[in-house]
Amino acid sequence: MRVLDLIKTRYSVRTFDTKPVPKEDLDYILECARLAPSACNKQPWEIKVIQGEALKEFSAVYRKEGFKDAPVCIAVCGNHTQSWHRGDDKDHCDIDIAIVSDHIIMAATELGLGTCWICSFNTDIAKDFLKLPENVEPIVLIPIGYANEPAREKIRKPLEETTSFIG
Amino acid sequence: MRVLDLIKTRYSVRTFDTKPVPKEDLDYILECARLAPSACNKQPWEIKVIQGEALKEFSAVYRKEGFKDAPVCIAVCGNHTQSWHRGDDKDHCDIDIAIVSDHIIMAATELGLGTCWICSFNTDIAKDFLKLPENVEPIVLIPIGYANEPAREKIRKPLEETTSFIG
Repeated sequence: MRVLDLIKTRYSVRTFDTKPVPKEDLDYILECARLAPSACNKQPWEIKVIQGEALKEFSAVYRKEGFKDAPVCIAVCGNHTQSWHRGDDKDHCDIDIAIVSDHIIMAATELGLGTCWICSFNTDIAKDFLKLPENVEPIVLIPIGYANEPAREKIRKPLEETTSFIG
Repeated sequence: MRVLDLIKTRYSVRTFDTKPVPKEDLDYILECARLAPSACNKQPWEIKVIQGEALKEFSAVYRKEGFKDAPVCIAVCGNHTQSWHRGDDKDHCDIDIAIVSDHIIMAATELGLGTCWICSFNTDIAKDFLKLPENVEPIVLIPIGYANEPAREKIRKPLEETTSFIG
């Protein structure tokens, strides 16, 4: 599938079928995550793949109906001690975590799986459940499974509203 | 090309051929950027496409030989007033900008173009040149063009070092 078609195909899936994600699909997705670029190649990520009964318990982090039905959730966590900080101390952890997450979502979309970018969740529950030390932050949760809801039309600003040409 | 092949094909290109980027390729790349998801669909990005003589001048932001030879540079800027802030005030601007940038880089890779994630640049010069207000930050610079250097092997941590399974 072309990149533009992948991007058009992806949408936020919030209702999942209980059909499991094949192991080879999960392996493929995780390899796409593993090879992500990162600032100074620090790879400051910790990836937690939560499944089965553990995911039912974990679903307290995000109380939307449907989340707990996904067969898999990947919690993409950032290690702020490992991440690259620029000279002015800007921490590039969020950027690197977003790249990994985007790879996961693109790969899952290619395989016909539904996903959702979830950033609005209870981080305290997530940290406790995942037993994360102080320097590791759960940043993105990605439920993965077969969608049980139709795609919706994408609403985006027109190009000229966000993009300008210089030179 | 499969997503995994795209990810394997991409590498940091720092030496470019002067051959121009076809306009239809640039249009395709910008459409892939435009359709990116963002937290609460805020789309807090300002995308500056810098070319030609303007890019020669802009290259003062990043003094690596080769950068100024790229036919195009896309400066992906984040608007911190528009971006979604979570209840605990975590700003999701960097995450959204990284998603857009990843789309740009994936699309360019698919078209056989070279790119580089540049986050270590002189932000003061960039802000001045792009005439950005205080709330808009230049976050990622992406030179785009035909690579004039070979691919290098990717060095990444093994899966088991970053990834764990729960449940």
